[in-house]
Amino acid sequence: MSEGPYDIGPGRPRLDALAKACGTERFSADVYPPDLLWAGACRAGIPHGRIRAVHTDEAARLPGVHAVLVRSDVPGTNRQGIVHKDMPVLCGDKVRHAGDPVALVVAESRTVLQQALALVRMDIDPLPVLGDMDAALADGAPLVHEGHGSNILLAAEIRKGNAEAALRECDVVIEETFHTPSQAHAFLETENGVAHLDGNGVLHLTVSTQAPFRDRFEMGHALGLPPWNIRIRNPFLGGGFGGKDGATVQCLLGLAALRLPGRTIKMWWDREESLLAGYKRHAARMHYTLGAMRDGTLKAVTCRLHYDTGAYAHLGGEIMELGMEHAAGPYRVEHMDCMGWCVYTNNPVAGAFRGFGVAQVSLAFEGMMDRLADRLGMDRLELRQRNALRRGDRNCAGVTLTTSTGLGECLRRVAEHEFWTGREAWKRAAPPFTRRGVGVAAVFNGMGYGRGLADSAIAKIELTPEGRFVIHSGVTDMGQGNASTYAQIAGEVLCQDAGRLTVPQPDTETAHPSGSASAGRTTYTFGKALIAACERMAEKLFRRAALVLLADTPEGFTLVPGAVRHLPTGRDVPLTMLGTMLPRDDRICVGEYMMPVSREVPDTGKDFVIGFPHLIFPYAAHLVRIELDELTGSIRVCDYLAATDGGRVLNPVNFHQQIEGGVAQGLGFALMEDFATHNGHIRTRDLSTYLIPTSLDLPDTVSVAVDTVEQSGPFGMKGVGEVGLNGPLPAVASAVSDATGAHPDRGPLDAETVLHLLARGARA
Amino acid sequence: MSEGPYDIGPGRPRLDALAKACGTERFSADVYPPDLLWAGACRAGIPHGRIRAVHTDEAARLPGVHAVLVRSDVPGTNRQGIVHKDMPVLCGDKVRHAGDPVALVVAESRTVLQQALALVRMDIDPLPVLGDMDAALADGAPLVHEGHGSNILLAAEIRKGNAEAALRECDVVIEETFHTPSQAHAFLETENGVAHLDGNGVLHLTVSTQAPFRDRFEMGHALGLPPWNIRIRNPFLGGGFGGKDGATVQCLLGLAALRLPGRTIKMWWDREESLLAGYKRHAARMHYTLGAMRDGTLKAVTCRLHYDTGAYAHLGGEIMELGMEHAAGPYRVEHMDCMGWCVYTNNPVAGAFRGFGVAQVSLAFEGMMDRLADRLGMDRLELRQRNALRRGDRNCAGVTLTTSTGLGECLRRVAEHEFWTGREAWKRAAPPFTRRGVGVAAVFNGMGYGRGLADSAIAKIELTPEGRFVIHSGVTDMGQGNASTYAQIAGEVLCQDAGRLTVPQPDTETAHPSGSASAGRTTYTFGKALIAACERMAEKLFRRAALVLLADTPEGFTLVPGAVRHLPTGRDVPLTMLGTMLPRDDRICVGEYMMPVSREVPDTGKDFVIGFPHLIFPYAAHLVRIELDELTGSIRVCDYLAATDGGRVLNPVNFHQQIEGGVAQGLGFALMEDFATHNGHIRTRDLSTYLIPTSLDLPDTVSVAVDTVEQSGPFGMKGVGEVGLNGPLPAVASAVSDATGAHPDRGPLDAETVLHLLARGARA
Repeated sequence: MSEGPYDIGPGRPRLDALAKACGTERFSADVYPPDLLWAGACRAGIPHGRIRAVHTDEAARLPGVHAVLVRSDVPGTNRQGIVHKDMPVLCGDKVRHAGDPVALVVAESRTVLQQALALVRMDIDPLPVLGDMDAALADGAPLVHEGHGSNILLAAEIRKGNAEAALRECDVVIEETFHTPSQAHAFLETENGVAHLDGNGVLHLTVSTQAPFRDRFEMGHALGLPPWNIRIRNPFLGGGFGGKDGATVQCLLGLAALRLPGRTIKMWWDREESLLAGYKRHAARMHYTLGAMRDGTLKAVTCRLHYDTGAYAHLGGEIMELGMEHAAGPYRVEHMDCMGWCVYTNNPVAGAFRGFGVAQVSLAFEGMMDRLADRLGMDRLELRQRNALRRGDRNCAGVTLTTSTGLGECLRRVAEHEFWTGREAWKRAAPPFTRRGVGVAAVFNGMGYGRGLADSAIAKIELTPEGRFVIHSGVTDMGQGNASTYAQIAGEVLCQDAGRLTVPQPDTETAHPSGSASAGRTTYTFGKALIAACERMAEKLFRRAALVLLADTPEGFTLVPGAVRHLPTGRDVPLTMLGTMLPRDDRICVGEYMMPVSREVPDTGKDFVIGFPHLIFPYAAHLVRIELDELTGSIRVCDYLAATDGGRVLNPVNFHQQIEGGVAQGLGFALMEDFATHNGHIRTRDLSTYLIPTSLDLPDTVSVAVDTVEQSGPFGMKGVGEVGLNGPLPAVASAVSDATGAHPDRGPLDAETVLHLLARGARA
Repeated sequence: MSEGPYDIGPGRPRLDALAKACGTERFSADVYPPDLLWAGACRAGIPHGRIRAVHTDEAARLPGVHAVLVRSDVPGTNRQGIVHKDMPVLCGDKVRHAGDPVALVVAESRTVLQQALALVRMDIDPLPVLGDMDAALADGAPLVHEGHGSNILLAAEIRKGNAEAALRECDVVIEETFHTPSQAHAFLETENGVAHLDGNGVLHLTVSTQAPFRDRFEMGHALGLPPWNIRIRNPFLGGGFGGKDGATVQCLLGLAALRLPGRTIKMWWDREESLLAGYKRHAARMHYTLGAMRDGTLKAVTCRLHYDTGAYAHLGGEIMELGMEHAAGPYRVEHMDCMGWCVYTNNPVAGAFRGFGVAQVSLAFEGMMDRLADRLGMDRLELRQRNALRRGDRNCAGVTLTTSTGLGECLRRVAEHEFWTGREAWKRAAPPFTRRGVGVAAVFNGMGYGRGLADSAIAKIELTPEGRFVIHSGVTDMGQGNASTYAQIAGEVLCQDAGRLTVPQPDTETAHPSGSASAGRTTYTFGKALIAACERMAEKLFRRAALVLLADTPEGFTLVPGAVRHLPTGRDVPLTMLGTMLPRDDRICVGEYMMPVSREVPDTGKDFVIGFPHLIFPYAAHLVRIELDELTGSIRVCDYLAATDGGRVLNPVNFHQQIEGGVAQGLGFALMEDFATHNGHIRTRDLSTYLIPTSLDLPDTVSVAVDTVEQSGPFGMKGVGEVGLNGPLPAVASAVSDATGAHPDRGPLDAETVLHLLARGARA
């Protein structure tokens, strides 16, 4: 009995749900081949210093130790980095943050590994620590990268109109400086993988990564071997959020495997190592001036953004670019002058994180909007509605919005919701010693890579001899559920039920390069490629079935579950027959897609090499109702509403899970998460000090999908992986100012901060 | 140094020319694996009889004999046949022609094989022999196939208008009966192959065949194994001409290999066995009535066609269909009534042969045209020009000609040629005791399978890691040069030189089903599929090169020899780089094509299941100048002109070779070839009695390509593999009547026939 096609539209259960709920899914961390060896990095321990010597003899002599490797053992360039290759696999002359790896130990057990790591002695002459951006930008500050010439990784500017002149003509001008902290991804499955070099010289990895195909190039470059001699398997991830977009364990594992051919090596960072050596969200400082007319029309904005990228570039420049591109929010602003600096410090390396540079400016600009509304005596939501971008407008970066632009509809859904219409009564009903506040925020988040770097995917679908379809996904499923959506897309195009569809996770040997799992792009880009592949498959099967039936045209055929049907005669050709008959290369179809880019080149952003500007944006309007304890300052989130424009929804279950996950992680960023450092040393080494929200801290999110169509997208969708994270911090800040009368200028809004605001509000 | 692209248009040398001229090409017959065994068939020897017993013991006991197999050893249905499966692999109860196989012997050498074959004793009770169609159609004749109910394989009719009524209104009505003989293909390489069953149960064959993919189904059906467990390699053929379109050695070899797993078995028919047991052209008898108006306008034709298909159906019904479809020549004839009978006899099996049923009716209808012209006192060429089909006309089968129809232009080229304009002076200059004559003929030949059976091809092109392209051809090159043309097509689309293009001959494991090498279809159908595959490859390479160059669109790329070039920046991505980078499944592109069919269903031909009607026709006008010896009757062909409409010419060298080859084989049919039988026994057992023309018998053919475009075809071409054969017999007959004053009614026009005509002409 067929259950009917696993198709687009209805809320299909995710194919991976059961295995994950039952704990039977095998993640990379679950891979334990027999006779494996353990690898671990010996890390600098001090944030800035010059290496005089590394003594490995004692560690190497320890029984059970198979190798102790240092910089001179790295056969390639020793350089990693997605855009700028400034990060060594093993440090040779200098360490730039406390987590920098100096030696790599391979041992027969984790116990021996820990003993050996303790026996490696490093002679490192300390250098002055650049613990924050002020220190790094001070006159005479030592250089983190001497070759780079300054501690500024990238300085850039976006100009539209003449903001300085326009500000002089505004009825109202306000100014503020905002701060957002660093944030840890805190995924369940920390960085890990296994590697071995086979007898043919092929290096095999199974690794928890968001970019298996790019990893091959990273490893090849750093370790001096052809990327095509590296095969990467990429099981489901136990979380990624950007933190696995870039090399973590890959090159270290590769180095160990090259040294010990035939042996399987495992590396798995514990939570402390993950917090110390993994990537983080960029802490930011943002100075804004906003000018508007008396009726609330936004006129001009200037902003000066500083992003702390830590010791290495990673995607720091590009993350700051996205912040700048979104700096004036999803609004019509005629004049903008935005300058940005991405700064090297001796802090842990900052990198990609859901909300990629935009989560920071969302606090700032939405904070400016609240201040402006209050100054003008306007309703905060009405101010946003008045200025919200519409299709055909130019956004603050100067790009004409030619694609779906549903922010107005998002705001309308919030304005009509009882959380908003009933807010005054609800606030008045606050219990004793508590205050209630309602906050709103409007956010957006460019989808895909933007210009200068093809946002491309290559999908492969295979008909098996058993008459099933295998969708060879080239992009990671880190939990967002794209694998299941791919099955749905194939099920829709090919009219097949779930039992005939499998989606193995990426393997560079069998799947094709499709870019990273990032930028809200996977379902959009790979989905489009997959539709093309499935359409080719359908066309092919019609033509092959025509041969079987001796029909002389391929017309009049359709797919039904398990078969190709010839409508004029009603005859079915079973997929098992076609699968058996066709030679292997004829059972495969490949489809490809390249995301369109803006053909408008704004006379701005000229310092950007890649990633600017974007063409397609999901939008959202968020509303939060909070209750805060006047005595302790603690916040309880009572209600949360997210109205999201993600184009057409392919599967409501997945869609709302993405929004709920983004809101939860955003509320962590809003309420408690602060990956603080002190003089380059991290202050939170585990999840008892680095706090993230639990389900008890969070309300049920009411997620509403707004009815738009992204014409370019697969079945009209666009990606909502990131936009949901950008709303909570500004929305909570808005609610806090509503409750306290004082406008927050930073996150997280922990109890101490709230108590200060309460005091300031009382004074105001 | 690149030689420049191996592209379409100029006369590129064939890639296989050198190896063939030097004798280094390896045909199937050249395959001699170590330790091979020889297989041979023990054949009936009598044309019709009932088998009582087959005694194999003595043969089996002979040292060196590995197996002696009979009907009961065949594991499957034991039935072969492309449309009707009426031909046994080994006969069990009855023999139907003298070459029918009754037992199969496998021995360690050819010598032992011959000895063993002589030791097989067959007890066969003779039945009355149906030595010709009259005998087979006589009342009370025994049935060749008792299950079939009559000796008529297929009786069919094509009616257009009302010929009977129209004939009564004609100014002139003439009537005649024509005969054409059977003809042997007489290829250099007789039927042969090798086979072995490997340890995985896969049956491997290397065989001289025109239809490797169909052979798998023939063998699977007859021998009871899945077609996908059969792998067929199909090297260049030393000639085919239709005689290898259908199973010859395949099932016998397969049977031997199944019986002797692991052993390699070779079978190679000698010339006598080839003449006895191979396929032949259908002998035909054709009765015509033609009515016309005084001005030469053709009005009505009736014809009654009989084709002798021999003991088995093979493609007899379809061959007769083509004869009927072409029965009234390439002319506008308002009314036609054509009836056809394809008749079983006890003669050797007739099958496909270049000119497939059309060569026969070409003699008849062109003979009618000459008679009509003479009766009306009209110029023979002018009569043809007046009635020649033009685009938009309906042909005699009722099909509107929507595709290229260049006959008028072919006739014009003949009319303007000095062979025609100077004919009277040339004839007057005949030496003593000789006469000179000039003949013309207009012919056509439907291309492809026609309706009811998809004329389809699937082309696969592969980029190798070395940056070369491999074109996996799915259709045989039997000498017509299609492999080289495929390289040219790929060279044209991909702009690559010959050194980067290889075209391995078909292998069912690596190539994809693309139909048979027949019906003038291979370059057209596979060429179109290959263009699609190459265009996909180009598009793919542009997209992959865009990724390498970090370009954000696949626009502005082009292929140059050895590389993909990005025109905006002038950067090249070498094919070697792309070949190394791309995973295997991404280095392959598949293209497919299905020949269009007529959407018009004439209210005729309703008895045809497949193959009727055709949509696309090549046309030709032929002129021959002969000199005949009044004393001996022997003919010398002095000049030959063939003006051919084959659409655009892809490679003049190949095009003219096809025409010259067809004319040569057609002149053999016209002048000397007569595969005669007497009471079911063949009268010519070798090439000293079955005569074919040598280069000394033939003039240099002047081949002229007429400038038309077949819009549906690859670069505007259509296939000319067959049409060239249809002209010589009617053209020579026309010249003989010009020289003798008597109209021939049969072929071949050997000396004896010519002497009779001379005598008749003198009496007239």
